[in-house]
Amino acid sequence: MAHDDATHTLSTLSARRLKWHTQDDAIVLMRTDCPVCRSEGLTSRSRVMLTYNGREVVATLHQVEDDWLAPTEAGLSEAAWERLDAEPGAALGIHHAPTLPSLSDVRRRMTGKRLEAVSFERIISDIAAGLYSDVHTAAFVSACSTLPLDLDEITSLTRAMVDVGERLSWNSEMIVDKHCVGGLPGNRTTPIVVAILASLGLTVPKTSSRAITSPAGTADTMETLTSVDLSLSDMKRVVESEGGCLAWGGAVQLSPADDILIRIERALDIDAEGQLIASVLSKKIAAGATHVVLDLPFGPTAKLRSVVAARTLAQHLTMVAEAFGLKTHCIFSDGLQPVGRGVGPALEAWDILRVLQGSKNAPADLRKRAISLAGAALELSGTTEPSKGETVAGKALDNGSAWEKFQRICSAQGGLREPPRADHTASISAHRSGVLRAIDNRRLSRLAKLAGAPERPAAGLIIHKRLGESVMRGEPIVTVHAEAAGELEYALEYAQSNFGMFGIEG
Amino acid sequence: MAHDDATHTLSTLSARRLKWHTQDDAIVLMRTDCPVCRSEGLTSRSRVMLTYNGREVVATLHQVEDDWLAPTEAGLSEAAWERLDAEPGAALGIHHAPTLPSLSDVRRRMTGKRLEAVSFERIISDIAAGLYSDVHTAAFVSACSTLPLDLDEITSLTRAMVDVGERLSWNSEMIVDKHCVGGLPGNRTTPIVVAILASLGLTVPKTSSRAITSPAGTADTMETLTSVDLSLSDMKRVVESEGGCLAWGGAVQLSPADDILIRIERALDIDAEGQLIASVLSKKIAAGATHVVLDLPFGPTAKLRSVVAARTLAQHLTMVAEAFGLKTHCIFSDGLQPVGRGVGPALEAWDILRVLQGSKNAPADLRKRAISLAGAALELSGTTEPSKGETVAGKALDNGSAWEKFQRICSAQGGLREPPRADHTASISAHRSGVLRAIDNRRLSRLAKLAGAPERPAAGLIIHKRLGESVMRGEPIVTVHAEAAGELEYALEYAQSNFGMFGIEG
Repeated sequence: MAHDDATHTLSTLSARRLKWHTQDDAIVLMRTDCPVCRSEGLTSRSRVMLTYNGREVVATLHQVEDDWLAPTEAGLSEAAWERLDAEPGAALGIHHAPTLPSLSDVRRRMTGKRLEAVSFERIISDIAAGLYSDVHTAAFVSACSTLPLDLDEITSLTRAMVDVGERLSWNSEMIVDKHCVGGLPGNRTTPIVVAILASLGLTVPKTSSRAITSPAGTADTMETLTSVDLSLSDMKRVVESEGGCLAWGGAVQLSPADDILIRIERALDIDAEGQLIASVLSKKIAAGATHVVLDLPFGPTAKLRSVVAARTLAQHLTMVAEAFGLKTHCIFSDGLQPVGRGVGPALEAWDILRVLQGSKNAPADLRKRAISLAGAALELSGTTEPSKGETVAGKALDNGSAWEKFQRICSAQGGLREPPRADHTASISAHRSGVLRAIDNRRLSRLAKLAGAPERPAAGLIIHKRLGESVMRGEPIVTVHAEAAGELEYALEYAQSNFGMFGIEG
Repeated sequence: MAHDDATHTLSTLSARRLKWHTQDDAIVLMRTDCPVCRSEGLTSRSRVMLTYNGREVVATLHQVEDDWLAPTEAGLSEAAWERLDAEPGAALGIHHAPTLPSLSDVRRRMTGKRLEAVSFERIISDIAAGLYSDVHTAAFVSACSTLPLDLDEITSLTRAMVDVGERLSWNSEMIVDKHCVGGLPGNRTTPIVVAILASLGLTVPKTSSRAITSPAGTADTMETLTSVDLSLSDMKRVVESEGGCLAWGGAVQLSPADDILIRIERALDIDAEGQLIASVLSKKIAAGATHVVLDLPFGPTAKLRSVVAARTLAQHLTMVAEAFGLKTHCIFSDGLQPVGRGVGPALEAWDILRVLQGSKNAPADLRKRAISLAGAALELSGTTEPSKGETVAGKALDNGSAWEKFQRICSAQGGLREPPRADHTASISAHRSGVLRAIDNRRLSRLAKLAGAPERPAAGLIIHKRLGESVMRGEPIVTVHAEAAGELEYALEYAQSNFGMFGIEG
C-alpha cells in the first residue's frame, strides 16, 4: 500500500478509548461528517486499516452522527485498542483496508472446490492477523464444514495453523500430551492425568482451550483453581520445575487463528471434524508434543454418535498426526452419560479435587477414566511395559504423589485457590418414579450453558443420578447452579419444556 | 417466552438513540456493570431480545465500561432503534434472546445435508425478522453455496422468500417483467425496456435491487434520476396511472430476507446460482409478474463464463419459475465487454437518457439490447406476433413515445432529476499501441467499485474504447470518476497494478 505523505497527514484522527467490549472484533467509530470519512469515501461497515507506530489493524467502521463523538476522534473497541497498542489522543492513520487475495480462496471453496496448502496458508495468516470480518470467517468455517475437508486439506490447515503461532521447544526428547474430543459433560480428566504423569517424571506441558460448544473446557475449569493465562516464559518455568503445567493455549498464542475460529464455531454451535482435527493437532504440534493419547467418548447423545463415527475420527486423526511425526493412541470410551457429578467450570473442579485427594465421595467414573488415559500415555511413551500402565497410574493417585504434584503445579502457576460457589441454585425433580435409562448429554449441556456456563465459572449442574439407578417421583435428579437470578430462571424455563432429557422407565 | 412481571420490571433500561450506523445490524450497548447485565448474566456478544410497546427486536450486545453511557441506559444502533420504533428515554425490556430452532436447520445443511421446505421457511422467516446475527447469515449463505442448492431446495427457498414479504396484486391479468442476471458492467437496459413496454400499453411494475457485487444495480442507477424508495401505495398509484414504474424492491418489502442475504453476499463478493434464482424469482412472483424476460450475458469475464453456464442457469430458472406458474423467456447475450459507455449509477443513467432521447451519441449497443429484450417481452406476452417484437419496440424509441413515458414515470415517482457528476476524475491511458482485443469485466467492475460505486452515485468509469478498436500508446482508454480524492487514489492504485484488464495486441 503506497500512500504519499500528504494523504497520510490528511487521513488521521485522534484515538479515543471507548472501553467498548466486542470480544475480538476490532471496530472503529467515526463521525459520518469527519474529514477522513469524507476524503476517503468511507461508509458504515467499510473495512478500514488503522495504523499507529508501525502497527496495522484492520477494523470495521461504524459511523455516528451525534456529538458524543467529536469529528476529530476515532473511537476504538477494546480489540482494536489492544492490537494497536494506542495511547489516548494518538494520531491514527486511517485508510481503506487492502483487498485480501485470500478471500478469493474462500470464495473458491464456497463454490465447492478443494483448496491446496498455499490457500490455507493465506487464509489462516489473514485470520490470525485479524484481517477477516466475522462474515468472512463464518463463511470460511461453513464452507469447510458443508463440504467436509479431506485429509490433504486437514493436513494443510493444521500446518497453516501451526505456522502462524508460537512453537515450543523443550529440553526433553519425549513430550507427552492428551486430548479429549469432548461432547461429554463433566469429562474433565486432563488435570488428573497431567498430575499423574508429571508425578512419574514425564514432561507434560499441557495447554488447553476454553469450551467451544460445551459448558466447560479444561482451561475454564483450571481457571477456577489457579491462573491459566501463563506467558510462554511462565509456562517454561513451570514445566522446567514441575514437569507439567495446565495452561490456557490462547494465552501462549500457540494457535492464534484457532481462537478466532473457535469463537465463530461457538456462535454457530458447530464443531466440524476437519476443523476439530486441525485445532487439536495444531496445538499439540505447536506445543512440541511427540506422544499424544486421545480420548474419544461415543454415545447416541455424545459428540461422536457411534463407535463407527469414533473409529473414523480416530483414523483421520492418526493419519494427519503421522504426517507430522506425532505418535498417537486413541481410546474409545463410554459416552452414554456425564462423567463425575459436576458440569460447569467450578463444579467440575470440585470433582477433580476429590479424585486427587482420594476422598470417599470422589466420583469413581472420573477416577477410572483418568487412570485409563494416564496408563495409555505411560505405555505409548514406553515408560511402562504394555498392560502395566493403569496399575502404575493408579498407584500415583493412591499414594498421594499425583495430588502433591497437582498442588505444586498450581502453586507454580500462581497458587491453588478454592473454586467459586453459585449464589442461586434450584433442583429439578423426577416427574415420575422408575429407573433412569437414558440421559441426553446435548440437552444437559444446553441446560448448563443456559445457567451461565462456561462464562460464569460457578454456573452449571450437579447430577445426582447415574444410569441404571432408581428414582422416586419428586426426587431431585439434577441441581442447577447459577450466578445470576435471570440465568437460573432461563435454565429452569428450558428444563420445564425438556423433561425428556432424562429417560425414566419401568 | 414466559416472563413474570417482576422480571420484566427488573430488566429494563432507558432507551438512548446513539445515531450509530451499522447498516441493518441491530446492536445494543450497555454498561458491563448495569443491573440488567448483572441480573440476566449478559456478556459481550450475547444475543438479547429488546421489547418495547409490543415490538420485539433481537440485537447483539456490546458492553462499555465508561461514563459516556450511564448504567441505566441502553444505547441503540439505528437498525435497532428503527425496528423498535422507540422514543428517547423509553423503558426497554431486555432479556436473553430465545434459542432459534432454525439454527438447527442451518447446522444440518452445514453437515452437507439437504433441507426440506419447512426448514427454509423457518430460516428465512427468522432472517427476515432480524433474528440472525451476521455470523449465522454468513454461515447459511456459505452452506448454500458450497454444496449448491438443488432444484427442490431452490423452489423451497424461493417460496419461503415470497412468503415472508408483501405480495402485490394488479388489475391487469398480464404483468410483464424483465431481469438481467448481471455481471456485465453498464448493462442497464431495464429503464429503457420498461419505458418501451409501458408506452405500448403493457403493465410493468418493475422493482429492482441494488448492486450485489457489481458497481451499480438498476435501483442505484434510477435513484440518480428520480426517487425509487416508493411505498406500496405510491407504487400502485404510479403503475395505475403510467402502466409501469421503476422502484427499489427493498422499499416495498417484496423480499425482506433477500435484502439481508444480499448485504452478506456483497460482503463476501459472491452470488451463488441457487440464491440468485431464488432472489430473482421471489421478487418477480411477489411483484405479481406473469411473464418474465431474462437477460443472461455470458463471456469469459462475465458472471456467466460460457454459453453452457448460461444455458444451465436458464434451464434452472425456467424450471423453478414453472413451479410457480411463471412464463419465462431467456435471452443469451454477448458478455464480452461492458455495455454503453458509463459504469456506475450516474454514468449509466446518462447513457440511458441518451438512448431514450435518441441522441446522436447514444450508445448503439445499449439501444440494441434494450430493443431485443423489449421485443422478446412483446412476443412472450402475445402483444405482437413472433418476430415482430423488435420492430415494434424500436419504433417506440424512435417516435419518442418511450422517452415521453419515461419522463411521465419519473414525474409520477417524484420528478425527473439530473444525475450527479463527480468532482474527481483521472484517465487511464493505454500502455502500448495496438488493437483492443479483450476487456476483463471483473477487474473493470472492481475498479469502478474502488472508485466508490455504487455507494457514491457519481463514481464509476467512462470507457472510451470498444473491442476491435485501435488505440495509441498514451491514449485514454477509461476515465475514473470519484466523489472523494481518497477513492480516486485508491482506484488508480489498483489500475496501476492491473494494466492487464485491457488486452491490447498487434
